[in-house]
Amino acid sequence: MAITLVVNPGSSSKKFALYRDRALLINAYVERSNDGFEMCTAVSGTQQLCENLDKNNFKDSLSSFLSLAKEKNQITIFSEITKVAVRVVAPGTYFQSHRLVDTDYIERLKKLSDIVPLHIPHLLQEIESIKKYLPSAQIVAVSDSYFHRTIPIHARRYSLKEEESLKHDIYHFGYHGLSIASVMRKLSRISNKDFSKVVIAHIGSGVSVTAVKDGVSIDTTMGYAPGEGLIMGSRAGDLPSGALLALMQIKNLKPTDAQIYLQTSGGLRALTGDADLRLVLERKARGEKEAIEAIDSFVYQIQKAIGSYVAVMGGIDALVFTATASERSPLLRSLITEPLSFFNINIDKEKNDLCLSRDGVITGTGSLVEILVIKTDESDEILLATESF
Amino acid sequence: MAITLVVNPGSSSKKFALYRDRALLINAYVERSNDGFEMCTAVSGTQQLCENLDKNNFKDSLSSFLSLAKEKNQITIFSEITKVAVRVVAPGTYFQSHRLVDTDYIERLKKLSDIVPLHIPHLLQEIESIKKYLPSAQIVAVSDSYFHRTIPIHARRYSLKEEESLKHDIYHFGYHGLSIASVMRKLSRISNKDFSKVVIAHIGSGVSVTAVKDGVSIDTTMGYAPGEGLIMGSRAGDLPSGALLALMQIKNLKPTDAQIYLQTSGGLRALTGDADLRLVLERKARGEKEAIEAIDSFVYQIQKAIGSYVAVMGGIDALVFTATASERSPLLRSLITEPLSFFNINIDKEKNDLCLSRDGVITGTGSLVEILVIKTDESDEILLATESF
Repeated sequence: MAITLVVNPGSSSKKFALYRDRALLINAYVERSNDGFEMCTAVSGTQQLCENLDKNNFKDSLSSFLSLAKEKNQITIFSEITKVAVRVVAPGTYFQSHRLVDTDYIERLKKLSDIVPLHIPHLLQEIESIKKYLPSAQIVAVSDSYFHRTIPIHARRYSLKEEESLKHDIYHFGYHGLSIASVMRKLSRISNKDFSKVVIAHIGSGVSVTAVKDGVSIDTTMGYAPGEGLIMGSRAGDLPSGALLALMQIKNLKPTDAQIYLQTSGGLRALTGDADLRLVLERKARGEKEAIEAIDSFVYQIQKAIGSYVAVMGGIDALVFTATASERSPLLRSLITEPLSFFNINIDKEKNDLCLSRDGVITGTGSLVEILVIKTDESDEILLATESF
Repeated sequence: MAITLVVNPGSSSKKFALYRDRALLINAYVERSNDGFEMCTAVSGTQQLCENLDKNNFKDSLSSFLSLAKEKNQITIFSEITKVAVRVVAPGTYFQSHRLVDTDYIERLKKLSDIVPLHIPHLLQEIESIKKYLPSAQIVAVSDSYFHRTIPIHARRYSLKEEESLKHDIYHFGYHGLSIASVMRKLSRISNKDFSKVVIAHIGSGVSVTAVKDGVSIDTTMGYAPGEGLIMGSRAGDLPSGALLALMQIKNLKPTDAQIYLQTSGGLRALTGDADLRLVLERKARGEKEAIEAIDSFVYQIQKAIGSYVAVMGGIDALVFTATASERSPLLRSLITEPLSFFNINIDKEKNDLCLSRDGVITGTGSLVEILVIKTDESDEILLATESF
């Protein structure tokens, strides 16, 4: 019986999960809190417990998690963990496959640090921690863009010279792939219908919409980098090239500054001061103009993405909402779907209102499109991806 | 009776037209030819005549045109021309109105030269020419983004801080506005139906798709600058921010270099070596892989834009094709519309094949959406815009 640790590092939060074969033993969620950081852990089947961490402990939270797992008798010694799976968000054809982490892998990641300044340095730090505390474990890098490797050339390629795209490896890679894969796996369990044309709206702190045709990704809104596409919590999404270049000229920004600027000072944060969609929805409910307009833009972009995928798939059979904001907010789902009745998308108001943080079918009477809420399970998906290693 | 000169300057071509009140007297089209430049002129109602120009004459082609107008007895002396209307493609809230050209206007244009390096310097040169040859004429700057001033805030604004957007005046202005206005004016003449939801695909050397709801623009693919949005002849359209910044980092490009790079080395030119859509379609017909894939990408992006606007308008009543490539290529119209039958968009094969460089309705039997080809007339539209001055 193998014990596997799943590590899912983000820029300001991370998740750990420990499995014996496919059975979850204990998991943890570490995120920024009002004063520093907080780690919430739960032994499988029991209540979640939260404790504060100071800033240094956030960096080193793997060690806290492993100690806790031992304390809770889930493992006896660290070396019982023979495999570690880590989610990787990195642009590149090389990074679009799941791979064993070796020195070559780390060297290639380091080269991308300046290009993806918010994700790669955290990832490298996490890999260092893993090597420190679990020196004999095999580390599997699980690609968050693997699911999108099926995107056909006409959507994968930008209108740059092929030799240039190839040389610099600039393609539309897509992200949230593990989440989408998890949703697709669960979709067939939740509904016994056979959906050929599926659109998945992943709305958390990252936001993307993906078109899945006959089971494979054919397009997605995030492209080369995970900050692209739609408006997100603090990420600007796609600023058209001319606007971005004008901003860089006027503000005298270097590309790395611009990367950081767009990823930390854009999105809902730029429009309202709050990066948290829940807060912005509350402010909208109180009638605040700034929040109303921001939600209008946010929802509008998601609707446009859905429409664009309906066009190129020649229809839609199922629309799936996933990730925290999608799972928790009936209002958001209602705002997005309301104007889409032309696509035969109609939700059932009551079913929608009752579906909170759980899987559910919210299809309205007469809707030709099945509408579902599916809780994504990236950890399980990451675990499954390591089984061939 | 007033004589008005209309000047429509492009980066590598320009058009002149002389009107007595609303009646066209003579017009000219100047463009790059195999050896230098060519000017083709036609006195209204007669055959077009072409002559070669050398490079200096291109800059100074206004003088050639005016001399020819005199030679052909359309005017007696230059000073009969009391008004000159010039089409302006420039980002900015100020430039989204039609205005008299004065020193303030010119100063504001000069400040944008680096930000729109392919359009503004040519425009400034043309205004200099006008002032030289027609020193006493009133010059009216007719805005190519005026028609898009109705785009609502949720589509007009990018996800940047409002004080930043306002200070640097970075909004989704839109272009091809004069073309779209001309098409909308003709639409009601060509069809007696009352269309509330119209999508207009302008496909020439520039490419854009616009959503017009109840007569006003609600969104369009070009945004802050005219190189944005869809793949064009030599313009890359929207390269996602992360991809653009990575390219700048790798190639060490400054913003102005990147502007020029994206506008001259992107699009069909990047994908196939040819910027001319007609040539690429011919190469596709010969089975060339590069051309087939480029047309796939080109058509795919247009379809996505149409779908996104169908979503946010809650349907579509009419789809209009305009500008040279749209007007001349039944194949292109067929490629774009073929997968859109889910939107009730179906063309009539025969009507489509027969509609070449003229207005026409190509709606198929049973199609709920009216599909039309409408020749755009920017010159007439520019003329009309000057009547209130």
